[in-house]
Amino acid sequence: MFNQEQLPYLLQKEHIAQLQKDSILIGDRRTFPFERSFVRCHDITSVADAIRAMVTQGGGPLQVALVSMKFLARQIARSIVPCTIETFDEAIRILSKARPTNTTMARTLTSFGVKLTAIEFDKRTIVEIVDNLVHMIEIDFDRQYDLMSDFGSSVITDQDGILTTCFAEHSFLLSLLKAKDQGKRFKVFVPETRPYLQGARLTAPSLVELGIETALVTDGMAGHLMANKIVNRYMTAADAVAMDGSIANKIGTLTNAVCALHFQIPYHAFAVSPDTSLHSCDDIVVELRDGNDIKRVMGTPITVEQVQGYYPAFDVIDATLITSIITGKGMFAPNQITHAYDEVT
Amino acid sequence: MFNQEQLPYLLQKEHIAQLQKDSILIGDRRTFPFERSFVRCHDITSVADAIRAMVTQGGGPLQVALVSMKFLARQIARSIVPCTIETFDEAIRILSKARPTNTTMARTLTSFGVKLTAIEFDKRTIVEIVDNLVHMIEIDFDRQYDLMSDFGSSVITDQDGILTTCFAEHSFLLSLLKAKDQGKRFKVFVPETRPYLQGARLTAPSLVELGIETALVTDGMAGHLMANKIVNRYMTAADAVAMDGSIANKIGTLTNAVCALHFQIPYHAFAVSPDTSLHSCDDIVVELRDGNDIKRVMGTPITVEQVQGYYPAFDVIDATLITSIITGKGMFAPNQITHAYDEVT
Repeated sequence: MFNQEQLPYLLQKEHIAQLQKDSILIGDRRTFPFERSFVRCHDITSVADAIRAMVTQGGGPLQVALVSMKFLARQIARSIVPCTIETFDEAIRILSKARPTNTTMARTLTSFGVKLTAIEFDKRTIVEIVDNLVHMIEIDFDRQYDLMSDFGSSVITDQDGILTTCFAEHSFLLSLLKAKDQGKRFKVFVPETRPYLQGARLTAPSLVELGIETALVTDGMAGHLMANKIVNRYMTAADAVAMDGSIANKIGTLTNAVCALHFQIPYHAFAVSPDTSLHSCDDIVVELRDGNDIKRVMGTPITVEQVQGYYPAFDVIDATLITSIITGKGMFAPNQITHAYDEVT
Repeated sequence: MFNQEQLPYLLQKEHIAQLQKDSILIGDRRTFPFERSFVRCHDITSVADAIRAMVTQGGGPLQVALVSMKFLARQIARSIVPCTIETFDEAIRILSKARPTNTTMARTLTSFGVKLTAIEFDKRTIVEIVDNLVHMIEIDFDRQYDLMSDFGSSVITDQDGILTTCFAEHSFLLSLLKAKDQGKRFKVFVPETRPYLQGARLTAPSLVELGIETALVTDGMAGHLMANKIVNRYMTAADAVAMDGSIANKIGTLTNAVCALHFQIPYHAFAVSPDTSLHSCDDIVVELRDGNDIKRVMGTPITVEQVQGYYPAFDVIDATLITSIITGKGMFAPNQITHAYDEVT
């Protein structure tokens, strides 16, 4: 198992979400790396609002949601909210709606809710019960990340040029760390990932923190990098995987995946498990965000007010464009992904 | 022939370059649309430096270079520089080196130099001679733009969604204006074109100025737009065309062209003429610019200092990715481009 201290600042649990006596602190990824600040939420609705406002993103909402369950247990123990399963069900419903495309948080919370329903609890036992359930979930995710990064590191070859997109979190970063420990030399090309610049702000600084050779590029450079054989591998996370092997991931991923196919470069996507409720790519809900976000960079306008912006937040990537989906159960060709089915524990 | 007043602010000749008594004013595209300012140059070396610093770009350097020839003629008339052909040859050499990828300026200046060599001139006649030569060149370019935009507008279909890249200047903007006059309805999707944001700053405001429906998108959205049938056509300028039908254009063009091929969408590139000195794509010189430019947006850092940036300024697009190259002589399949050969007059 990997060591938590190997992880970069952004992926350390206490920097994603912290439980306080009467609030939850959420690490603010919007201002990283220029500030290391937190947003304080006093109830579940404000946690959901913070997730919707991109205070945290990618794998962040999952950890925030787990801390939210521990927070609710303590609110029950202190008689602030009713000691019923509905208190959790309502919170799960509110949180799950905050990010429609990435279903990992929603599925994990649903599974948590099912387990909690089966357990008798009262005000004196709820904290211990919820903390134990959350602890088991965290251990399971860490185990999945460890397995995924074993597989991920195995496909990396010495002298690789690896393109990524957005912030591919534990599975990708641990794959790179393990490949580096195996003595492989490689360089990672990070598209800035407009409009929120997760590549420039989250991935590139984290890779530098891990001592991995990194170059920041713009979002349109995949063709150049692949045609000139500077990049020979494409690796991203997947925000959702459907049962037909298609995936959703940050806008820009489809464009790069099409280039990877054209230039005959493998594309590997990391996912804990497919979402059995998504039968095909048509079932993936793509979150449309405010088009005005395209017209600004970190708050500064880049065009005139009259121009309209268009901002689909995610791409759906057809199974035919993907070489393998890397899960904790192994690496699967997209049309074999049903074999990776594993109910989130 | 199109009317100069139809052109948006940026393409009006006096906003590209202005001849002053003892200097040349260059319209500063770096600060547009937020400022409408000019950079003043007192000699050819500082004009070349301004071009190199991206004060103007795309088709801008050509107009700046023509005004520079008129400026030199006046300096000769006032005995500030020697009255010899070498005065022009030296200036042509300095200016041509300022942008290695786009060869239109260099080829036009070379042709101008050849013509001037054949004419006897002295201090009293040089201004009229140069002004006449420049005037003939300007008329010829306007005629080419007019013909190119006749062809360009003819391929645009009612209800088109058109993707572009960077700032495709006269040929593209006039094509849109003519298609609009023909009663065709369409929408143009403009990638912001990082790092200098020519799409967001130059193209989108110019299209709004022309009353054309416009949406600003990020540089990674081609796949999304094409897969979802929001865009059904890709149109750009070409900074250079080689005799094998391959072209150079702003970085990001190759990525979008690959997506266009994958989604079976036509890609049209505008070019006045191929460069006969470029036998194949291997002869196209791609300008590498400062990687630090990727790490900033309009001066604001978007990542940590330790991250390295990589900035090839142009893409080379293989002939197999291009549907047609639109010149003043007609629309050519890339492998037929030698038929468009026309010595720049």
